[in-house]
Amino acid sequence: MATKDPIDLDAIRAAVARQGAKVREIKKSGGDDLGEAVEKLKALKLELAEAAKSMGSDIGETLDIDRSALDMVLLRRMFVVPSFEIYGGVRGFYDFGPPGCALKANLITLWKQHFILEENMQEIECTNMMPHDVLSTSGHVERFCDLMVKDTKTGECFRGDKILEDHIEKLLTDGSSRTPDEVLSLEKIARQADAYTPEELDKIFSDLGIVSPLGNPFTNSFPFNLMFKSTIGPEGTLDGYLRPETAQGIFINFPRLLDCNYGKMPFAAAQIGQAYRNEIAPRNGLLRVREFCQAEIEHFMHPEKKDHPKFHTVAEDTLKLFPADKQLGDGQCLTDVSLGEAVAKGIIDNETLGYFIGRCASFLTKAGIKSQYLRFRQHLQTEMAHYATDCWDAEILTSYGWVECVGLADRSCFDLKCHGKATNTKMQATYVFPDGPREVTRVEVKFSRKDIGKAFKKSAKIVTQTLQELVEDEEKAMQLEEQLARDGEADLETGEGQVKILRPMVSYAKVKKKVQEQKFVPSVVEPSFGIGRIMYSILEQSFVKGVGGDQQRTSLKFTPAIAPIKCSVLPLSTNKTFRPVVATLAQALTKLGIASKIDESSAAIGRRYARMDEIGVPFALTVDFNTVGYEGYDKDGCVTLRERDSQQQLRIPLLAAPGVVNGLVRGHLKFESLLAKYELVGGSAVQVNATLCGGGSEETSKAVVVESASPNGASLRFSRPATVAKN
Amino acid sequence: MATKDPIDLDAIRAAVARQGAKVREIKKSGGDDLGEAVEKLKALKLELAEAAKSMGSDIGETLDIDRSALDMVLLRRMFVVPSFEIYGGVRGFYDFGPPGCALKANLITLWKQHFILEENMQEIECTNMMPHDVLSTSGHVERFCDLMVKDTKTGECFRGDKILEDHIEKLLTDGSSRTPDEVLSLEKIARQADAYTPEELDKIFSDLGIVSPLGNPFTNSFPFNLMFKSTIGPEGTLDGYLRPETAQGIFINFPRLLDCNYGKMPFAAAQIGQAYRNEIAPRNGLLRVREFCQAEIEHFMHPEKKDHPKFHTVAEDTLKLFPADKQLGDGQCLTDVSLGEAVAKGIIDNETLGYFIGRCASFLTKAGIKSQYLRFRQHLQTEMAHYATDCWDAEILTSYGWVECVGLADRSCFDLKCHGKATNTKMQATYVFPDGPREVTRVEVKFSRKDIGKAFKKSAKIVTQTLQELVEDEEKAMQLEEQLARDGEADLETGEGQVKILRPMVSYAKVKKKVQEQKFVPSVVEPSFGIGRIMYSILEQSFVKGVGGDQQRTSLKFTPAIAPIKCSVLPLSTNKTFRPVVATLAQALTKLGIASKIDESSAAIGRRYARMDEIGVPFALTVDFNTVGYEGYDKDGCVTLRERDSQQQLRIPLLAAPGVVNGLVRGHLKFESLLAKYELVGGSAVQVNATLCGGGSEETSKAVVVESASPNGASLRFSRPATVAKN
Repeated sequence: MATKDPIDLDAIRAAVARQGAKVREIKKSGGDDLGEAVEKLKALKLELAEAAKSMGSDIGETLDIDRSALDMVLLRRMFVVPSFEIYGGVRGFYDFGPPGCALKANLITLWKQHFILEENMQEIECTNMMPHDVLSTSGHVERFCDLMVKDTKTGECFRGDKILEDHIEKLLTDGSSRTPDEVLSLEKIARQADAYTPEELDKIFSDLGIVSPLGNPFTNSFPFNLMFKSTIGPEGTLDGYLRPETAQGIFINFPRLLDCNYGKMPFAAAQIGQAYRNEIAPRNGLLRVREFCQAEIEHFMHPEKKDHPKFHTVAEDTLKLFPADKQLGDGQCLTDVSLGEAVAKGIIDNETLGYFIGRCASFLTKAGIKSQYLRFRQHLQTEMAHYATDCWDAEILTSYGWVECVGLADRSCFDLKCHGKATNTKMQATYVFPDGPREVTRVEVKFSRKDIGKAFKKSAKIVTQTLQELVEDEEKAMQLEEQLARDGEADLETGEGQVKILRPMVSYAKVKKKVQEQKFVPSVVEPSFGIGRIMYSILEQSFVKGVGGDQQRTSLKFTPAIAPIKCSVLPLSTNKTFRPVVATLAQALTKLGIASKIDESSAAIGRRYARMDEIGVPFALTVDFNTVGYEGYDKDGCVTLRERDSQQQLRIPLLAAPGVVNGLVRGHLKFESLLAKYELVGGSAVQVNATLCGGGSEETSKAVVVESASPNGASLRFSRPATVAKN
Repeated sequence: MATKDPIDLDAIRAAVARQGAKVREIKKSGGDDLGEAVEKLKALKLELAEAAKSMGSDIGETLDIDRSALDMVLLRRMFVVPSFEIYGGVRGFYDFGPPGCALKANLITLWKQHFILEENMQEIECTNMMPHDVLSTSGHVERFCDLMVKDTKTGECFRGDKILEDHIEKLLTDGSSRTPDEVLSLEKIARQADAYTPEELDKIFSDLGIVSPLGNPFTNSFPFNLMFKSTIGPEGTLDGYLRPETAQGIFINFPRLLDCNYGKMPFAAAQIGQAYRNEIAPRNGLLRVREFCQAEIEHFMHPEKKDHPKFHTVAEDTLKLFPADKQLGDGQCLTDVSLGEAVAKGIIDNETLGYFIGRCASFLTKAGIKSQYLRFRQHLQTEMAHYATDCWDAEILTSYGWVECVGLADRSCFDLKCHGKATNTKMQATYVFPDGPREVTRVEVKFSRKDIGKAFKKSAKIVTQTLQELVEDEEKAMQLEEQLARDGEADLETGEGQVKILRPMVSYAKVKKKVQEQKFVPSVVEPSFGIGRIMYSILEQSFVKGVGGDQQRTSLKFTPAIAPIKCSVLPLSTNKTFRPVVATLAQALTKLGIASKIDESSAAIGRRYARMDEIGVPFALTVDFNTVGYEGYDKDGCVTLRERDSQQQLRIPLLAAPGVVNGLVRGHLKFESLLAKYELVGGSAVQVNATLCGGGSEETSKAVVVESASPNGASLRFSRPATVAKN
């Protein structure tokens, strides 16, 4: 992306990258000047952030988090683990463990409530396996490709654009002096890396002298189709593919969906499910994987009626918009233009697209994405498909940079038209004129089937069909009519070759007719959500390191709605007296449909709170000696309710606790509102109490739960869990 | 299955089949003796049911419903439609439309609450695509096959067992006279059709002279693997398969899952997701498909501790149990043996298996399966895998007969052992002796690595490893020791061939040791749910035809928990005055997370109730003139709440309505309990009112919603929806 003064900013960026490489190098070789190098890196990063800020942007281009620390939590707590790990793993495949699975389910529940229920959409579920013809029509069989190059010696495969990007990054950070023009030119090539034809890419590879990581020459580049291919049925004659997106299943079900909606327009259908891309070289951890969950919406509407009845509900929202002209201009987002103004000024093409941009933003915010880390970037004309009217990506700032997490596109009537044509099916809806019949001009056609049959024999059908279809295109039909009237003959392209049409065979005439209704192929606005990418962005933005001054202590600040576990239930110590109360509390929460977790281990209560913070449990209920009135303690029948982020603790009646937690989790209650009602307990006081009571209990020394050691230096790239000891 | 007096019952069954064929024949040829033939068929069916009943069974062997009427509702209302329908469809693939999708989601929510939340299971989500090695270890690459035969002329493929079954059914119903022994023998062959080896099957085909449907000879039978195969990555060297079951993903994640559970045993993990089988010839509609949803549980436990702490909660439940010896004996289910007795008597192998049988039954009942149509059939010894301890199938009675919908198997330690061995990973848990250290006898081994190295060179490693592994098998190790002591040498099988071991190389000794804990490979009980089959069974059992005396009127009596739409919101007529109230009611329901549907069409209220009954909406709220106090009507601020099955209607305050419906849907309120609180309204009175008011409104004649015509004679086999008009 270009900026106001791109060279300055890019120079600092390049310096950051160079210094980063140096730090890595020193770490690897164990040099003793590491401290100094790190300090310099920090100073450069600060400089970059300030430069970016001075140019009107308050954030840098990556989210500043300790990614390796996050990765370690994700792996150790089994949010996400490499698939088939004990078999050595396969790149681009990940499994969700219990908290990851719950996080995903909660995110999807939120999505369904926000879109399907509140917008009254029709949800469908199609198969993952699709036959050749569907994906051939959609263009995926021919065009869903990346350019690949192979190491001519080893046969190893690489994505051409990624190799090119890496090569240029290396050039820009290798310390050699380059003119600003050279830098700009290299940066431009890197930005367009995925847009070159095979021939263009080969030329650039040759110009820049790019060789494989092992120093061997590359083959010429060639397209590699990213769909997983299989065959359906025992004969082996029907090719099938794993769907590369869920959208196609919706399009081909359009006639039934319209039926299901009593023929009413506009309406939206949605699908949530897996999609697959056989990536050449998956990387960036969870952001580019071979199997992922999509949630896609197709909003069908009249192509000339793209207003939306609920647009007013988002019209005053001001989001960070990054339109195409700003990307080519000063590189700044608009931050003071409301969606209403954006549509009125033509920045966003139409109300329906604008409405979904607004709804998308409110969904992401509800899910825990901070608005300052969310922008909507418009596709440049060169990025858009020829049939698309307007496209915007919701991009979220991550430690990898701005990442496309949702695509919002006005795809016009393209998909329905293609499938309709391929299957000879009318993918049409009906618009009944609200103010009664209208007079319209239509082209009517008359054939002499005898003449056509005689002249074209077997081809008569295709000729007739082509002539028939012309009535849809008034201009062309009347041109043909004029030509026949004038010359007595005309050439016609039938799709199976050109033929000569003679006057007697056909005639066209414009007629005026009164009609009640109009048939039309609907236009489509498609919001398409990458659930895995949104999940990963939430994980990054929720991650906090250094809780309570302890550098090793981390927390995941999930909103209650998406937190995998909503509430922990903890006995103050391992004293048996607490067990029935703990069990009853947990059961009451389960009955309310609230996922809870008991930790009855002998670890101190502070340690157990820390464990719960680590997996992002927003609330904790702690049962202590006063709750049960244990020997010499005053029984108050209350438990301590702790809130994760504020670490505030309240004393609330045992019987009220499940209801209160339910209210907090469902969003009917705010923790702050409880402060007026219940007694605030000093965190440290409880802590002291815990130590005292714990020490006094007869069972403290016995471990009920043995927490296994954490694998050190774990990363999301195929390390083994602690219990997988090798023989 | 054999019965007390099998020949009698089977004779009637055969007669029913013959008469059925005759009826179909007459229908096809349009003969005028149809009525008589149908009457005879009915009489025979009655005879069969009574014969079955007299033998202690109160139901026949199929559920008696009008399947084609149900199919028509499912298709027209888009519960389920053939996938890629506009492309002509592909057998064995179905899409869920909006109500089907919601039904499935509700069933899964119920399942998650019943198992994952209430049993505190660890849910995981693994990939659909799996690499070769995982499925090779599990045995699927080699053995997940059906026997296939091909028409030698056309190349068309068929499942050998199905062709055999069909052939025998035809023989038994062709009217020729056969001795009871001949009939029995043919029936036995049909029953075992899927258990023959290729050679056995070929012999039977030849003996019975079976040819293809076109009269051509078949090829010999050969195994066809049912997994969809693909390749992962660009090199094309890594085979991948779509998983044939979700279970394997759980097994290979065992070490991490155990870690995640703090090393505690026992515990259960669960996975819900798609599985795939490339069926040779899918049939029976939704019961045998190529892509389907499974919900599988793996309960890991100590192989010698298969008791279950919550078994007492199901011990008194009496289910219909069909143990192996009854299947081979009188063919009757046990109906008076509680699960507690069944485990005590060894009918069910252990408490954990019994517990899950009980929980499975309560889940299915909650979901709407009637207990009289549910039985648990034990696998015969010949059906079970060699490693399995005990297996039971939950079978549900459908119009296709008893269908396996859930499998419950004690699979011992087999799966974990196989994956552990293949990957050299310890798939073990730890049992800490609760009463302190124990003295155990262990075999220890001492090597002379020098001697081994010298003798075996490159093979030294495998020899050492084999000798090391022997310590796990006390008997074998001590045998070898004895032999070496006696003869000075012994033969050893290494897996890479036999070698001769000499005395100095190795020695074994039994030693006594005090140990704190024991390592073990857990045993597994696996309840595996076929979500699609359960859904279909619920649809059949919920289906009622002839509501209110109208033969064409149908209803789906879903329980509120699984009903796709919980409540309809209906204005009494199309009068505009109702619209804001209707919209507000629907919004209030949405806020509560309750799926509702508005029908503002001009159809009479009774007609609209019928539409809602048809898709199984359990409650309706109707807004009328009294609700709003329209010109001359007394305003009472109430709406009518209608219950689908009783068709009873109550007058309840508008403001209370969303809360009441919420209570009814979530199961906190019973409709019956409302009868004491609110006024019951006569259905017919409302009906009359509706007609009067509707007629008086200025807008009645305008259709707000145009319901499209239903395709007549629709079936779930690739007919087209009404709006798909062909050009």
